Amino acid sequence: MDVKDLLERIESYLDKEVILQGWIRNHRKQKEFGFIDFSDGTSFKHVQLVYNNELKDFDEIQKFHIGSAIEVKGIVVKSEGSGQDYEVKVSEIKLLGDCPEDYPMQPKRHSMEFLRDQAYLRLRTNVFQAVFRVRSVASMAIHEFFQSRGYIYAHTPIFTSSDCEGAGEMFQVTTQNLEEIAKTGKTNNDNEYFGKPVGLTVSGQFEGEAFAQAFRKIYTFGPTFRADPSHTPLHVAEFWQIEPEVAFCDLEGIMDISEDLMKFVIRYTLDKCPSEFEFLDKFVENGLIKKLEGVINSKFVRATYKECIEILEKADIDFQFKPAYGEDLAKEHERYLTDYFKKPVFITYWPQKVKKCFYMKQMEDGTVANADLEMPGIGETYGMSQREDDFTKLENRIKELGMNEQEYIWYMNLRKYGTTVHSGFGMGFERLIMYMTGMDNIRDVIPFPRTPGNCLY
Amino acid sequence: MDVKDLLERIESYLDKEVILQGWIRNHRKQKEFGFIDFSDGTSFKHVQLVYNNELKDFDEIQKFHIGSAIEVKGIVVKSEGSGQDYEVKVSEIKLLGDCPEDYPMQPKRHSMEFLRDQAYLRLRTNVFQAVFRVRSVASMAIHEFFQSRGYIYAHTPIFTSSDCEGAGEMFQVTTQNLEEIAKTGKTNNDNEYFGKPVGLTVSGQFEGEAFAQAFRKIYTFGPTFRADPSHTPLHVAEFWQIEPEVAFCDLEGIMDISEDLMKFVIRYTLDKCPSEFEFLDKFVENGLIKKLEGVINSKFVRATYKECIEILEKADIDFQFKPAYGEDLAKEHERYLTDYFKKPVFITYWPQKVKKCFYMKQMEDGTVANADLEMPGIGETYGMSQREDDFTKLENRIKELGMNEQEYIWYMNLRKYGTTVHSGFGMGFERLIMYMTGMDNIRDVIPFPRTPGNCLY
Repeated sequence: MDVKDLLERIESYLDKEVILQGWIRNHRKQKEFGFIDFSDGTSFKHVQLVYNNELKDFDEIQKFHIGSAIEVKGIVVKSEGSGQDYEVKVSEIKLLGDCPEDYPMQPKRHSMEFLRDQAYLRLRTNVFQAVFRVRSVASMAIHEFFQSRGYIYAHTPIFTSSDCEGAGEMFQVTTQNLEEIAKTGKTNNDNEYFGKPVGLTVSGQFEGEAFAQAFRKIYTFGPTFRADPSHTPLHVAEFWQIEPEVAFCDLEGIMDISEDLMKFVIRYTLDKCPSEFEFLDKFVENGLIKKLEGVINSKFVRATYKECIEILEKADIDFQFKPAYGEDLAKEHERYLTDYFKKPVFITYWPQKVKKCFYMKQMEDGTVANADLEMPGIGETYGMSQREDDFTKLENRIKELGMNEQEYIWYMNLRKYGTTVHSGFGMGFERLIMYMTGMDNIRDVIPFPRTPGNCLY
Repeated sequence: MDVKDLLERIESYLDKEVILQGWIRNHRKQKEFGFIDFSDGTSFKHVQLVYNNELKDFDEIQKFHIGSAIEVKGIVVKSEGSGQDYEVKVSEIKLLGDCPEDYPMQPKRHSMEFLRDQAYLRLRTNVFQAVFRVRSVASMAIHEFFQSRGYIYAHTPIFTSSDCEGAGEMFQVTTQNLEEIAKTGKTNNDNEYFGKPVGLTVSGQFEGEAFAQAFRKIYTFGPTFRADPSHTPLHVAEFWQIEPEVAFCDLEGIMDISEDLMKFVIRYTLDKCPSEFEFLDKFVENGLIKKLEGVINSKFVRATYKECIEILEKADIDFQFKPAYGEDLAKEHERYLTDYFKKPVFITYWPQKVKKCFYMKQMEDGTVANADLEMPGIGETYGMSQREDDFTKLENRIKELGMNEQEYIWYMNLRKYGTTVHSGFGMGFERLIMYMTGMDNIRDVIPFPRTPGNCLY
């Protein structure tokens, strides 16, 4: 039986015998009693095991170390102690797997840096039990949202021959032996699996658009890569993205979907992980639950970039960077705007010279049909756009930016063969999980973070 | 409105006006009428649009090409033609996106090879509409199965520093400039993002085991990679795997889970995709639905490798390869066994010298606690095993095989800090989809297949 199953129906187990398997998270010993904080990882809440010196192997049990795997038989009883309503009065404990005293995950506060170096063990700590259960449940929420609305889950490729959006530096994949290149003084594509080195995708958007032109409503959810060597709490080399693409959908429509998705994922996850959020609210970000409820209950604002610049220009505040039409927004501007609106805000229709992505729908006034979602407290989260659906405009833009046109012929052809108004967005999953858990470093919301100089295991 | 929504409640729309957006899949023109086979990709079933020469732009509409995107307004009526019960009597059609006559996806039979070269367009054909909707729904089934049973979805890393199981050749990731290596005659790890080249994971199993030692029941579902240059209908460089790992679970337990999962996924997908399976049964594999129902309704057999060898030895058949204890099973042996049992069969407890994976639980009789699932018609599908949970035995095996022990210390430590009986499997998602759709080439069940010499887009 899982601890989860036990706790969900604990009253029906009162005075009954249960057998549980799991690990000792903490162990308090008294002369005639012992208390084990017991978890099998299926529930954030632990079970208290109580044993006394009537057990024949009482002395043995008292020596059980923290981290050990045990099997326990006992009776569910009402607890007289504080902290839990029920506990298990032990009749038998078997040691399944010992854990020596050098076990690094002792029940005390460890620094996040220390825990990152123990990525394979940190999963057992309270904070990561909370974060990664939230991550798992939020993943399910995303699938649930899209599948129940008839979207197709598109598995877009990881290997890519194209440069995609130039969103960042790409990792290169090769099957050549680098030492051999050095030795012979030449590269040899005969040794390449694909006949040439290829890249790791930075986005599934383009293939997603091909899918949307066939299935109307699709989403991706998988790993993407950027070889950006920034050492910041927001950058990792490998991260998961959700990238919906929807045909016959304009910018307004994709903002609706985006807003609905975020509210759905937060609601679903709050409902399924009450203990986790209680813990995160208490120990990671005070007010977290209220913040998340606030998002669910607010109607997101939509304001054009132009309106936002006007608000900033009128603001009675001495910005370090003077806001000006045609310039990107600085962090301080974003902060002012989310304070001003007191709600998440989509900033729409940016000047093309600020948002340079070639695939965004070009408007007649020099703007593009895009939106960035700004969230109170963190600023920009992710962007969305209506995609350019006009073959000639897209082609001109590709030429203008000096891109390799050959690589994009198939992508341009989507505008030749039954083109549609279509839109999409790319939501960074880790940033969403950071926002939802209150964790302030992206390394702590992905199980095995990959950062410059760091590829553990 | 999506076509899916319309078709699901078509009776309630009878005699009502609807507005639809989608593409012309086929177009039959008569002197006074026209019939458009119309789809928006949300439903495998199409809608028939009927228009007549009372429309003022009748002549224009008759010129609309196959593949064009249109918006149509019309009334739902009972159909007098065969092939559909309802149709839409058009009052207005707008051309949204034309499609020239050189459109490669004309409504005729194309070869699979031709379609592979048009991967971005083949998504619009009937067979790929069926295959990729089944793929999407089966993905959801997998998440549904595990999440409803309390499993944690673990996002294991793509970049890896270790060789994993030696399951196959690894792709290498580098941020060095290969031409520069050739020019300077030396490699330079200063240019490496991670300080050294790293690999692309062949399996998430090891990190999955770390997860299971924290959360008890976990699964992965994501892309994995093999640089195996085989040109066969079963090999691609990039494929998706489902890898559950369960603590406190032995071989019997993981076989139960594996059997339950397969039945669940098939049942779920059959229920959600009746039109797709009807098509696949008719045009791709006759008897497909019966085959799949058969799997759901059979209790999978469990037979030891030893028993299977005895069955083969007694068989009244002249095998090309003589079955012998200690040898791997040949395709002809697998075929005989699945014919013999007439059901899916788990072949268990193989001799260690046949199944060399170092992580499999070593039994006292020289076998390992593993199982291969053999399916009637295709033979071996995927394997599972109880994992070695004894630190010393695992360490000895790693030394015996001459593996780099340093790389596996963290993995061995999972056996030091609270080790448990635990088990898992690795199910190749594409092979499952091949089995479920009847498609006989793996290139046709993954949207953008990556094979030797071939990385399109």
